[in-house]
Amino acid sequence: MERLKSLNNLIENLYKLPGVGKKSAERMAYAMLDFPSEDLESIAKALTDLKAKIHFCPICGMITDIDGCYICDDKNRDETTIMVVSYPKDVMSIEKSNSYKGQYHVLNGELSISKGMNTDSLNINSLLKRLDDGHYEEVILATNPTVDGETTSMYLAKLLEKYNIRVTRLAYGLQIGGNLDYVDPLTLSKALEGRHKI
Amino acid sequence: MERLKSLNNLIENLYKLPGVGKKSAERMAYAMLDFPSEDLESIAKALTDLKAKIHFCPICGMITDIDGCYICDDKNRDETTIMVVSYPKDVMSIEKSNSYKGQYHVLNGELSISKGMNTDSLNINSLLKRLDDGHYEEVILATNPTVDGETTSMYLAKLLEKYNIRVTRLAYGLQIGGNLDYVDPLTLSKALEGRHKI
Repeated sequence: MERLKSLNNLIENLYKLPGVGKKSAERMAYAMLDFPSEDLESIAKALTDLKAKIHFCPICGMITDIDGCYICDDKNRDETTIMVVSYPKDVMSIEKSNSYKGQYHVLNGELSISKGMNTDSLNINSLLKRLDDGHYEEVILATNPTVDGETTSMYLAKLLEKYNIRVTRLAYGLQIGGNLDYVDPLTLSKALEGRHKI
Repeated sequence: MERLKSLNNLIENLYKLPGVGKKSAERMAYAMLDFPSEDLESIAKALTDLKAKIHFCPICGMITDIDGCYICDDKNRDETTIMVVSYPKDVMSIEKSNSYKGQYHVLNGELSISKGMNTDSLNINSLLKRLDDGHYEEVILATNPTVDGETTSMYLAKLLEKYNIRVTRLAYGLQIGGNLDYVDPLTLSKALEGRHKI
């Protein structure tokens, strides 16, 4: 049965995705057999379009499928604040929270001690250029609260010292809806450190 | 950011797959952004081929992408036994176990009390036709060990009574590598019932 080529090819490729095991890949492929043809055509089109249409914004590094960029082109956004994130999906998450209306800068990677500190692969030069040219008042470092994210933030904070700009970091603390007894000790001590008057 | 159309389209479609939540669909789509173009093209091709090339074998109901069928056309297989399964993926699983070399018959569905007992939607008539025409000595009912699978087997067993053919059912019992204290009581009692001398 190794000869059902298109099905096996699909299973092999789904198997490469994060969080998808061999068994799930099979289940997904068989489910797709029952999809209407239009749906399959539309996924196929989305896949071929993915690389052809999506590219990085030369200013902020966010993914875009138009000539400019949905965020950089938006004149209603605050032009004095810039938030630095590691990946495009982080921009999506913050946009969904509806709590920030400034500019973004996407590094498209993180510095990693274990994988080598390659600062050249990150989208940092264009950040410095933006800070040189613009009238920014604050840079918010919003990399992930992981070792690599922290390393990246520390590196950037050091690099930005020479600019006369306020550099901030997202707050650590409890997660809304979480349970105190499930919070790890480090987060708990950070939450205590960052306590505020109510 | 609702405007990255191909990306959002991909996420929406991945989300329809079994076992894929909104968050996993997003993770998978972002991972695909990093796939080489050739891989994406090849998945896209597999998807468009899926409906165009894959069809059911008119004899056994198994999916096939050639004029005949990999199993029905194989002259090295035992032509006296026929195993009835619910879905094409069941054939794949049994083939992988390398423990059966007879014919198959795929019902492409199961009778379900909750969803209505629609025997017309199952590939049963062609099974009866095969039994009428062929020289089969045994029909192995290998539907799933679930309520719907059992219902289907019972219905078929009743239907096959008039044929002078041995009708058998796969054995219930412990799973190899499993732990006795994790086995459900029903399976355990079936395993006890089916015990054999060693």
